[in-house]
Amino acid sequence: MALIVADRPCAAAGVFTRSRTPAATISVNRRHLRSGYAAAIVCNSGNANASTGRQGHRDAVATCRLVAERLRARPGFDPGTRDVLVASTGPIGHLLPMDRIDRGITTLVRQLGRGRTADQEAARAIMTTDLVPKTAYRQWTIGGGRIQMGGIAKGSGMIGPNLATMLAFVTTDASIEPPLLQAVLRDAAASSFNRISVDQHTSPSDTVLVLASGAATGPPIRRTGSALNRFTSALNSLCQDLAYQIVADGEGATKIFRVRVTEAHSEREADRVARAVVNSPMVKTAVHGSDPNWGRIITAAGYSGVALEPARSSLWIGRCGGGAGRKGAGGTGGTGDRSWGGTAGKAGGAICLYDHGEPVALNARQTRRLATIMDSKDPTFTLTLGRGQAAVEWLGCDLSRQYVAINADYTT
Amino acid sequence: MALIVADRPCAAAGVFTRSRTPAATISVNRRHLRSGYAAAIVCNSGNANASTGRQGHRDAVATCRLVAERLRARPGFDPGTRDVLVASTGPIGHLLPMDRIDRGITTLVRQLGRGRTADQEAARAIMTTDLVPKTAYRQWTIGGGRIQMGGIAKGSGMIGPNLATMLAFVTTDASIEPPLLQAVLRDAAASSFNRISVDQHTSPSDTVLVLASGAATGPPIRRTGSALNRFTSALNSLCQDLAYQIVADGEGATKIFRVRVTEAHSEREADRVARAVVNSPMVKTAVHGSDPNWGRIITAAGYSGVALEPARSSLWIGRCGGGAGRKGAGGTGGTGDRSWGGTAGKAGGAICLYDHGEPVALNARQTRRLATIMDSKDPTFTLTLGRGQAAVEWLGCDLSRQYVAINADYTT
Repeated sequence: MALIVADRPCAAAGVFTRSRTPAATISVNRRHLRSGYAAAIVCNSGNANASTGRQGHRDAVATCRLVAERLRARPGFDPGTRDVLVASTGPIGHLLPMDRIDRGITTLVRQLGRGRTADQEAARAIMTTDLVPKTAYRQWTIGGGRIQMGGIAKGSGMIGPNLATMLAFVTTDASIEPPLLQAVLRDAAASSFNRISVDQHTSPSDTVLVLASGAATGPPIRRTGSALNRFTSALNSLCQDLAYQIVADGEGATKIFRVRVTEAHSEREADRVARAVVNSPMVKTAVHGSDPNWGRIITAAGYSGVALEPARSSLWIGRCGGGAGRKGAGGTGGTGDRSWGGTAGKAGGAICLYDHGEPVALNARQTRRLATIMDSKDPTFTLTLGRGQAAVEWLGCDLSRQYVAINADYTT
Repeated sequence: MALIVADRPCAAAGVFTRSRTPAATISVNRRHLRSGYAAAIVCNSGNANASTGRQGHRDAVATCRLVAERLRARPGFDPGTRDVLVASTGPIGHLLPMDRIDRGITTLVRQLGRGRTADQEAARAIMTTDLVPKTAYRQWTIGGGRIQMGGIAKGSGMIGPNLATMLAFVTTDASIEPPLLQAVLRDAAASSFNRISVDQHTSPSDTVLVLASGAATGPPIRRTGSALNRFTSALNSLCQDLAYQIVADGEGATKIFRVRVTEAHSEREADRVARAVVNSPMVKTAVHGSDPNWGRIITAAGYSGVALEPARSSLWIGRCGGGAGRKGAGGTGGTGDRSWGGTAGKAGGAICLYDHGEPVALNARQTRRLATIMDSKDPTFTLTLGRGQAAVEWLGCDLSRQYVAINADYTT
């Protein structure tokens, strides 16, 4: 279990799974967020409290109440049950062991710590079959004040013996009103956590929460202006960083790949094409085998439901371009570059394999270069649709025997 | 290569991939079917002639022209280029070797045979990495006449080093007008080939063709009446039989599973739920590992996009029910029962695991029974939605290490 506690009420915002069979925690959090403020996040791993019906809902509320009670016994402010947010991850269909939850909360409140060591411990506590804890930090100064932001996340695909869950908790001392925080978070999640896929199986528990205490010096963040821009940019970047770490730790993953869809009619259209490519077992196994099997990418786009026009479509394969302007256009940011949105893979040695509907014959040098790219840990596929101006980037991971082993054999 | 030739013009109908990046053969067939008649189907494996641009289109037409020319050199009727339909399967992005196609057609025309031996040879010729040839036959009498129907199919998921393709060719001596044949075929394909999935990667070449010669004795098939009912029933059953064989031969598959969604608001809604369950890598690996991990089924339904109501939804796990009435309600038709649409898995010893949104606690006997079901080669998952009257059945196969090996390692 992990517990995140603020020393004052914080502006709070959350985005949640779109599953129609959401875990009990989801509706509890939505209700607790109605005030726009919260002071604590409690999370357990080992049991998702999902598909647990009415008792599951009662247990989620009871968890929040236990946290509030224990915190009120300490000096400082007096949180109520609705000031507590809750997340659970693990197997589904089982009722929470409330006696253990109760004892756990007592221990957590007694052991509350500060700083990066405590962050690491919390990041470890929410792991299920994650191989590594996931943390990220940002800080910046504006108007003479320094603002800090930190986040932890968990997620590895379909984990435990049962179910993956993507959880991320972000804290910041920025001063920002709840509705604005919610809007900024929604956009940040849309271009990070909503554009990754390990196995396309949306969890009933996916949860991203932000607490903003306002303890930082400097001016509050308003609806326009550079303070908002800096905050938005930091939250986007931090969410993308954590999302990258989740894909990199995907179950059985040995490689990450990026899918950039450009010249789409709309972002929604670009998302559909990219999602189909990222989720195709055919593309994922080709990446695993370093097979430059570009027909799989084109045909995945072909069944995405978007009205592709082959004669306007082209495909380039290159390597991760790194952050735009940070590592040079189309460069070799390489594995571990957690930034998103580098220049499209057409620059920096990328190879065009499909040019406006026609296959491209490669020369020997290009064939070797293509093999090198596919053999790397971070191939980038750029699909240009010739239909408009919208562009998106998605992150996926390969499909390996280890994925099958984790999900088929290490079970009940 | 395979060649199917009729001794007269036949009513012809086809259904094709919905891919937006269709192979060259698709548009050629659509044009050749405009007349409603055809006399031959030529098919090559080893090259899909897909994503091959303008030259690919010219090559597909040339293939039809070569067949027509060679057939005209024989006694009998004189087919034109547009009387020939064409299909190709194999790696994509490569131009057809037209000299080899030319020589192949010469050989095929010389070696044309009749009867089931010839059928088997044709079914073998269109295989790529299929492990077994796929054939099915139906015959019935009506109005004093006997009608015969035969079909061959290929498909194994993502095959070759590159791309799966589902192809099926059906011939019958029934007498039926082209528009009616097309309507009956469309319905038959919708409840068979469109309700199977090995890996969700729609091929750019998927093709089902029917030739109906009218050579049978007995009355022609009209828009209503028992002759139409018998024909429809035979075609449905034959297509479901071939579709079953395709899933059973899915790449790396060791098990088939059935997903029945009932009490849906519409067939479209039921299809969305069933498709999500059948395609979930999480469900497929659970089936592979015989893990009664029902949360994976519920949560796949939860992300299908359908507005599920957990409190109205229940899940039953049983074994294949066999054809309705043929093997008894909810019985153990067992592996190899190629019929669809048995009684919903609620009868015959199926276990309810999720009852109107609440998890069900199983007793020891039920737990053992559940393990036996999951260990079988043909578990059936029945999800009742409590939203209406629509029901569908889908077939899927498990996801194994062998699937990854076939698609990642045995590559270019």
